[in-house]
Amino acid sequence: MSKNNVGVDIPDSILNQYDYKPYAGTKLGNPVSQRVAPTVRAQFGENKVVDSIADVVKAEVKDGMTISFHHHLREGDQVFNEVMQVIIDQGIKDLTLAPSSLTNVMNDMVVKAIKAGTITHITSSGMRGSLGDAVSHGALKTPVIFRSHGGRARAIETGKIKIDVAFLGVPNADEEGNANGMTGDAVFGSLGYALMDAKYANKVVLLTDNIVAYPNTPASINQTQVDYVVKVDQVGDPDKIGSGATRFTKDPKELKIAEEVNEVITHSPYFKNGFSFQTGSGGAALAVTRYLRQSMLDKGIKASFALGGITKPTTDLLAEGLVNKVMDVQDFDKGAADSMHTNPAQQEIDASWYADPYNKGAMVDKLDVVILSALQIDTDFNVNVLTGSDGVIRGAVGGHQDAATAKLTIISAPLVRGRLATIVPKMTSITTPGESIDVVATEIGIAINPKRQDLIDALSHIPGVPVYTIQELAAKAEAIVGKPKEIEYTDRPVALVEYRDGSLIDVINQVKD
Amino acid sequence: MSKNNVGVDIPDSILNQYDYKPYAGTKLGNPVSQRVAPTVRAQFGENKVVDSIADVVKAEVKDGMTISFHHHLREGDQVFNEVMQVIIDQGIKDLTLAPSSLTNVMNDMVVKAIKAGTITHITSSGMRGSLGDAVSHGALKTPVIFRSHGGRARAIETGKIKIDVAFLGVPNADEEGNANGMTGDAVFGSLGYALMDAKYANKVVLLTDNIVAYPNTPASINQTQVDYVVKVDQVGDPDKIGSGATRFTKDPKELKIAEEVNEVITHSPYFKNGFSFQTGSGGAALAVTRYLRQSMLDKGIKASFALGGITKPTTDLLAEGLVNKVMDVQDFDKGAADSMHTNPAQQEIDASWYADPYNKGAMVDKLDVVILSALQIDTDFNVNVLTGSDGVIRGAVGGHQDAATAKLTIISAPLVRGRLATIVPKMTSITTPGESIDVVATEIGIAINPKRQDLIDALSHIPGVPVYTIQELAAKAEAIVGKPKEIEYTDRPVALVEYRDGSLIDVINQVKD
Repeated sequence: MSKNNVGVDIPDSILNQYDYKPYAGTKLGNPVSQRVAPTVRAQFGENKVVDSIADVVKAEVKDGMTISFHHHLREGDQVFNEVMQVIIDQGIKDLTLAPSSLTNVMNDMVVKAIKAGTITHITSSGMRGSLGDAVSHGALKTPVIFRSHGGRARAIETGKIKIDVAFLGVPNADEEGNANGMTGDAVFGSLGYALMDAKYANKVVLLTDNIVAYPNTPASINQTQVDYVVKVDQVGDPDKIGSGATRFTKDPKELKIAEEVNEVITHSPYFKNGFSFQTGSGGAALAVTRYLRQSMLDKGIKASFALGGITKPTTDLLAEGLVNKVMDVQDFDKGAADSMHTNPAQQEIDASWYADPYNKGAMVDKLDVVILSALQIDTDFNVNVLTGSDGVIRGAVGGHQDAATAKLTIISAPLVRGRLATIVPKMTSITTPGESIDVVATEIGIAINPKRQDLIDALSHIPGVPVYTIQELAAKAEAIVGKPKEIEYTDRPVALVEYRDGSLIDVINQVKD
Repeated sequence: MSKNNVGVDIPDSILNQYDYKPYAGTKLGNPVSQRVAPTVRAQFGENKVVDSIADVVKAEVKDGMTISFHHHLREGDQVFNEVMQVIIDQGIKDLTLAPSSLTNVMNDMVVKAIKAGTITHITSSGMRGSLGDAVSHGALKTPVIFRSHGGRARAIETGKIKIDVAFLGVPNADEEGNANGMTGDAVFGSLGYALMDAKYANKVVLLTDNIVAYPNTPASINQTQVDYVVKVDQVGDPDKIGSGATRFTKDPKELKIAEEVNEVITHSPYFKNGFSFQTGSGGAALAVTRYLRQSMLDKGIKASFALGGITKPTTDLLAEGLVNKVMDVQDFDKGAADSMHTNPAQQEIDASWYADPYNKGAMVDKLDVVILSALQIDTDFNVNVLTGSDGVIRGAVGGHQDAATAKLTIISAPLVRGRLATIVPKMTSITTPGESIDVVATEIGIAINPKRQDLIDALSHIPGVPVYTIQELAAKAEAIVGKPKEIEYTDRPVALVEYRDGSLIDVINQVKD
């Protein structure tokens, strides 16, 4: 048994069997890595356009392979289920599923594929619903590997994930596979995560409902990367692609937290001309962006760049001149996606550029301020975004570990959710180390990581923003909802949680029924 | 001795020593290749900006390494000589020089580096002047390897060229290495060739006179690829970057050829809506573009794309709506470079996308019409663009072999140049196989490759465009200038000419003094 740097006991058997080192800290040094590259079959003016997914699957997908998908189409995705059903129908077995993430619309199909023996291993940013439930109850023989978006980029670039066939839905493509996410019925903007698959998979299959004139530009994915272009009826439901939360929240608790977060940012030493930020998605994040906009106007401060998953309120700041550049790895709504097509200052970036800690410099390493969410926060400021209070998987690492490396990392979270405490003495799993978390903002006040005396000095006297210790917040939460019931686990691991550098930060065990 | 498919006798010793297969034809099948990738040292917010080239060279360049440069700055380049002088001064030995090409401004410095033992091997698209002369007279112990732009991309992507350190001049870069060719004093537009070096070199050193605010977009080269950003006084002389030939030729011979070329194009079956073309640079090419423009207007025909090295007359066609897309691997003048910054339909493409025959589909494979030049053409329609009539190296493969794969490949060349025949029974070397050449256009008329009966049918009755056999043209040239003097060579190879697929199409031997 080895104790890692966030105090998690990790069985040596797991370290040995899956070739892991225990998480040792957020400082990564200057690791040198040998990159990998795909095997490429040359094509000379052959017809890449095919009508049948079944033909492509028959030709390219073999037992034991690793296949991938992207999740840019989010809950509107119609590619994953269509392709996976074909793969199940062809009786293919023992696949590793390695998508950028899994959205709810894919849950039942993955469970079906697991039951059919089609999928026997998964690596993903996260999972929820029926799939998270099945995995937490032991549906897979080998543990799922959870990786952040930057961690997936690292794993692909260094060969830990070797994708045999990538199936990538796109809202447009020409006959040779030049494609982008910016025009068509199923517009989703940046292809940031999918760009990794397009670059590194041995076989790249585009699926589109919109074959356009050759040559298609801008070509986020280009023809040198693409083996097949499959014509499908619809790659996604445009109404479900963007997250619903494009409107300002009216929830007073969320508004209060957003206001506090804005106060923390504007009172920090980082709020000055040329600062950079990532706010993320969801109603509270949009509210932060609106408050921040007003503060920037009031103080005459402009940002150098906004990063990350991008929403329309952020691209509005770009249009307004309050932000110089938007660095865009994914778009959460149609407004942001459309803006990428029209505003050259909104740069599409791939997941490596966004966050791979093993490259020559990722955008997250230049980030001043980030606002992140949490399912749970412990009294060491560690954060869990993967498992519920019942120990069942219902979340995603996303860019959480990656962006938490910002100079000022703020966790925005309610003290309690219903009858469940958010700030707890012990979480059901650890995703992001407290070492990288600076401030926790709740509806009753904030806690500042004691290692950040500079922030304690800067943020301790903001009117209307009480400062507590994290232990005080945990105690207040417990006072409201009581002690949480102890979760019972078996000793069988169902998921391994990598830190962004590929070390092991936690092991999630099967829950007892 | 093996005879290759253009009838060249190649000593088995060369095939064995340098691991070559003899050129076997233009049809390449579907070769499968394992791509390579660089070794990457991670950086986390370290300062990449340095003032001293000497410090970078001292830290990164070791005896025996392969170093590279690009030639986008052409005769205005000030990076190559500055860096190479530092390398010579540090006494580094036995380097392989692997630039995208070598322009005249670099000649004397390369000769100096060869004499100092700093450079002992070269692979390039071409060379001229004092350098070509030195190499042809045996200055290097190992033969130079000449590769086309697509061939270099292939060689880099498959590991035949492994670049240790790339020194890349750019007109702008931010502190992390995000850079493009579109703004600054030394604007040259597309970074097409340099993008290969940026992706595949272990160490990438940008040199710029213009460090701009972070993050710099569009980022043709991005920070994940860059190790150092070196501030220099001037990366290039803006007045010498663009080729001088931006004005329409007044040479009646060139005008006659250009007119004929236009007639050949417009009478061919390829001149229809959606056709594609590459015209190249130089006065005659500009004249062709102007004639072609008028023909497109007259016939109401629009092109899908123009490809290649791009000039302002071509971007003018884009602005005018006569061409839908410009696919741009390099720009020959400031007008074309400026247009890339403002017209989103002018897509920057890398050398692989342009022409690597081992990828999943290059632009050249979609090309309908190309106009290429020649130093010599033989009676099998083979073309030499590398050696003069005296056997001395004074040219470059460029995209010649690559673009010659177009459906209609026209060589535009005068019958004679001064006292030298262009169309000859036997050339001093072979660059591009006659199998890929369809028409030769001279000032007295055209010759059509006899394997293209369809073109003989289509082009034999154009008023004012006499058709000859290639033998007749060669005889007419000989009647004017007489038989060429036989060149005397030693049996020592000074250069190996690869076909685009990496097979050996010719060996250039040392000339006798």
